[in-house]
Amino acid sequence: MKRSVIDTVDLSKEEVQGLLDTAMDIIADPAKYAHACAGKKLATLFFEPSTRTRMSFEAAMYELGGNVISMTDAGTSSATKGETVADTVKVVSNYVDIIAQRHPKAGAALVSAVNAQIPVINAGDGGHCHPTQTFADLLTIYREYGKMDGLTIGFCGDLLYGRTVHSLMSAMARYEDTKFVLISPDELKVPRHLIDDVVTPNSIPCEETASLEDALPKLDVLYMTRIQKERFDDIEQYERLKSSYVLDAEKMKLAKPDCIVMHPLPRVDEIAVEVDEDPRARYFEQTYNGKIMRMALILKLLGDQDPAHTYPGGPFSLWNEAMEDNAYRCTNPKCICAAERSIRHKYYVAKNGSKRCVYCEQ
Amino acid sequence: MKRSVIDTVDLSKEEVQGLLDTAMDIIADPAKYAHACAGKKLATLFFEPSTRTRMSFEAAMYELGGNVISMTDAGTSSATKGETVADTVKVVSNYVDIIAQRHPKAGAALVSAVNAQIPVINAGDGGHCHPTQTFADLLTIYREYGKMDGLTIGFCGDLLYGRTVHSLMSAMARYEDTKFVLISPDELKVPRHLIDDVVTPNSIPCEETASLEDALPKLDVLYMTRIQKERFDDIEQYERLKSSYVLDAEKMKLAKPDCIVMHPLPRVDEIAVEVDEDPRARYFEQTYNGKIMRMALILKLLGDQDPAHTYPGGPFSLWNEAMEDNAYRCTNPKCICAAERSIRHKYYVAKNGSKRCVYCEQ
Amino acid sequence: MKRSVIDTVDLSKEEVQGLLDTAMDIIADPAKYAHACAGKKLATLFFEPSTRTRMSFEAAMYELGGNVISMTDAGTSSATKGETVADTVKVVSNYVDIIAQRHPKAGAALVSAVNAQIPVINAGDGGHCHPTQTFADLLTIYREYGKMDGLTIGFCGDLLYGRTVHSLMSAMARYEDTKFVLISPDELKVPRHLIDDVVTPNSIPCEETASLEDALPKLDVLYMTRIQKERFDDIEQYERLKSSYVLDAEKMKLAKPDCIVMHPLPRVDEIAVEVDEDPRARYFEQTYNGKIMRMALILKLLGDQDPAHTYPGGPFSLWNEAMEDNAYRCTNPKCICAAERSIRHKYYVAKNGSKRCVYCEQ
Repeated sequence: MKRSVIDTVDLSKEEVQGLLDTAMDIIADPAKYAHACAGKKLATLFFEPSTRTRMSFEAAMYELGGNVISMTDAGTSSATKGETVADTVKVVSNYVDIIAQRHPKAGAALVSAVNAQIPVINAGDGGHCHPTQTFADLLTIYREYGKMDGLTIGFCGDLLYGRTVHSLMSAMARYEDTKFVLISPDELKVPRHLIDDVVTPNSIPCEETASLEDALPKLDVLYMTRIQKERFDDIEQYERLKSSYVLDAEKMKLAKPDCIVMHPLPRVDEIAVEVDEDPRARYFEQTYNGKIMRMALILKLLGDQDPAHTYPGGPFSLWNEAMEDNAYRCTNPKCICAAERSIRHKYYVAKNGSKRCVYCEQ
Repeated sequence: MKRSVIDTVDLSKEEVQGLLDTAMDIIADPAKYAHACAGKKLATLFFEPSTRTRMSFEAAMYELGGNVISMTDAGTSSATKGETVADTVKVVSNYVDIIAQRHPKAGAALVSAVNAQIPVINAGDGGHCHPTQTFADLLTIYREYGKMDGLTIGFCGDLLYGRTVHSLMSAMARYEDTKFVLISPDELKVPRHLIDDVVTPNSIPCEETASLEDALPKLDVLYMTRIQKERFDDIEQYERLKSSYVLDAEKMKLAKPDCIVMHPLPRVDEIAVEVDEDPRARYFEQTYNGKIMRMALILKLLGDQDPAHTYPGGPFSLWNEAMEDNAYRCTNPKCICAAERSIRHKYYVAKNGSKRCVYCEQ
Repeated sequence: MKRSVIDTVDLSKEEVQGLLDTAMDIIADPAKYAHACAGKKLATLFFEPSTRTRMSFEAAMYELGGNVISMTDAGTSSATKGETVADTVKVVSNYVDIIAQRHPKAGAALVSAVNAQIPVINAGDGGHCHPTQTFADLLTIYREYGKMDGLTIGFCGDLLYGRTVHSLMSAMARYEDTKFVLISPDELKVPRHLIDDVVTPNSIPCEETASLEDALPKLDVLYMTRIQKERFDDIEQYERLKSSYVLDAEKMKLAKPDCIVMHPLPRVDEIAVEVDEDPRARYFEQTYNGKIMRMALILKLLGDQDPAHTYPGGPFSLWNEAMEDNAYRCTNPKCICAAERSIRHKYYVAKNGSKRCVYCEQ
């Protein structure tokens, strides 16, 4: 079992800083890295399409001098013949040196990490984790402020379902003097468990508001997300709220002169096109930063195969301490446990005493 | 904004000659170019499949020593999440150095060219333009005759809808002493605007005939295209006409000894397989020439980024002189304007005084 | 016409040994081959998806320092425009140096081999042949025993439809003192023609049994395959039989200490996951060996273009001696003859005096 990255917090705070340092060095001197992975191969093993994420990983590997085998049709091929994810990655381990995997089910990345002979990077496992998006976000902040401490981050839009929001909150919670401003309608507030698990234990000052205008003057970073119609029972409610969470040039006048605007993309209309010209817009630069952090991560995982590492690598790992119990059954229909046979069923005990599935953490 | 190529005539006659010269040099000494694009990446951004065109661009980039990121699923991924083409190319600009784009809507290549930070090559935008096919055609003629002047070109088949025919006519109209012979049934004659815009202004002798047999003895080049059943209201009419536009060994006896036969491929049955053995057949060599001209074009666009160039590069450009007017609306349902939001609406005034959309030119 | 490989037996026994020797050398010193195909391109021309086979070829080409153009959408692109396989490979010959082709119809690989200007490797043509799978199997055996003679091979499961079984039987029949043990239910016994054409002429001792337990102690190699429900008229019969052909740790106790277990993959449940830990399991290593043998084969075909070779290369070829007769019509609905126009119809006369189609050999 090689070191893999399923979640952002699989890397310690110091290791994340190491990625940021490598990233800054790549930006300063890309030629130095142009052959760093010569003769190595990355497989982009995508069980559902995500063109942007795939292209970013492939660009990253090419800029390191490596090669790429692209498996955009993973879901329509072996899988339809009834092959498990575990078997697929055991095979793919014989073809390449590192895997970037996308899968619609929570926990699928963990299944791969414990079965592959090579490092696995989670490129999204359902609504569960998507760590390289968060690494892109962190680099965007770091390039702007040259530090991660002491920043006020506003999250706006769908904070209930937004995976990128939850992940960035968890990542920022590790820094000193972080403050959150949570901007959303009542229907889409941050879920309780995130407050309990991330905000409260780290004593992070956290303001909740429904007004983007009120929040804007306080922010160093505004992280926008989309509000999806489907989330609302009351369609009139949606129509009424929608425009208040659209960022435009007018609202940007309320923001600090150095407040950067981020968005995981794709956007639909929650950021007006006119904002693209604003010097504080960073959402396209974020995609560049994503490529650079993926380069840094590939370099780390292909180089840093210290046998002393336990999976998945840091003090945050649950795998080794989780109980294996084939009588235990995860009940989350979106978990990989529900989709695959031959799964090793494992759980851990959460702080509130309940059993949680090691794959989907629910 | 970098220099891009949307249409054949975005390059001046001299620049096309430059491509032909580069192409001849590549053919003579491919090793000289084997590392010309080392460290560079091409994205083949295909919003609709076109396997042959995509493979040709990818082969071209590899023969220049570069790498390729393939996006054959562009239409099923970001686009289904409601992302605009403009946003997609802004992102892809962060991953690669040059884009070859295919899209089902007219004008989509122009949208990309004005939004990308990198050069865009139009690999087909609906029925609008497909310049690299025409460059392949030009090289095929040039390799045969060593010149472009003084040739009689016969176009046979569907001259009404055949994009490749219209484009090659426009390209050949720039040379001295070109003659056209237009061979088609009445239902599929060259559209009036092509006569008005291309043939008449350039005083090109132009003969129209329904008989391939009559035309054949006069031609230096025969450009075949397919007649599609769907174009005919009267199916009996179609059946009666069809065989008269099928080229076979018997009809080839009527052609000059050095008359070359071209076809944009794929063919169905408009050229009998027996003609493949005829030394005058050039339709498979055309695909080789297409690869070579794509190499020449990639080299030019990655190298030739003279800031003095206005987009898209030559005296034929309409973008800069077109009027931006958000009250103006293009009415062509096949135009990118009808498919995307956040389009900058622009028109120019045609010779007959009507307003034409800058994207689809209708 | 270049030398291509449609079937395992297109290579002589000595040539197969050459592949095995090259493979062993690649395993011993991969760096020696890391640039062997620099500047060369492979097209994976897949008219139906087969992700694993495609990835294996692509990994092989990259490990030789070459590049890959991937055509996973072959079936949805040119083909839907009515292009023949013959025309497609004539075009692709202008883009790359060698083709690995997958197609749902028997004989499609032969059509490509006789039309391409470059070598074609059959990566599966319907139920007909899939030689590189068999080469992987041979290397797996050779790595284990250091020889190919004197081995007892057990084939278990669906021996009636299992293409990999038939192909490995034909390949092993060429070695000295080979013995077969055929383990299957009555419904799925090896087809008569295989006994007549392969087993009997080579005087191979051949035992047929319905019991995996009885067979196991005798075997040097156990080749497992899946039994598909769809093959049974009587579903109760299937349910009753199924478990008796499932290999588990218990049954493995009956096998010799050095009996290796092979499977073409993907497996469903015919080998219990617990067997993966058994040191005799070789089915994942087989995929590694497949990559290595594909490297050896690509090297051979790109290097070994002796003009004295007749197609497809050995004494086993039927193409040159087959009769061309456009009045002859193959009646196999799964043959490429039934799917394509412009096919050259050819037959040869089998030992029993019947005419057989040169493409599907039926």
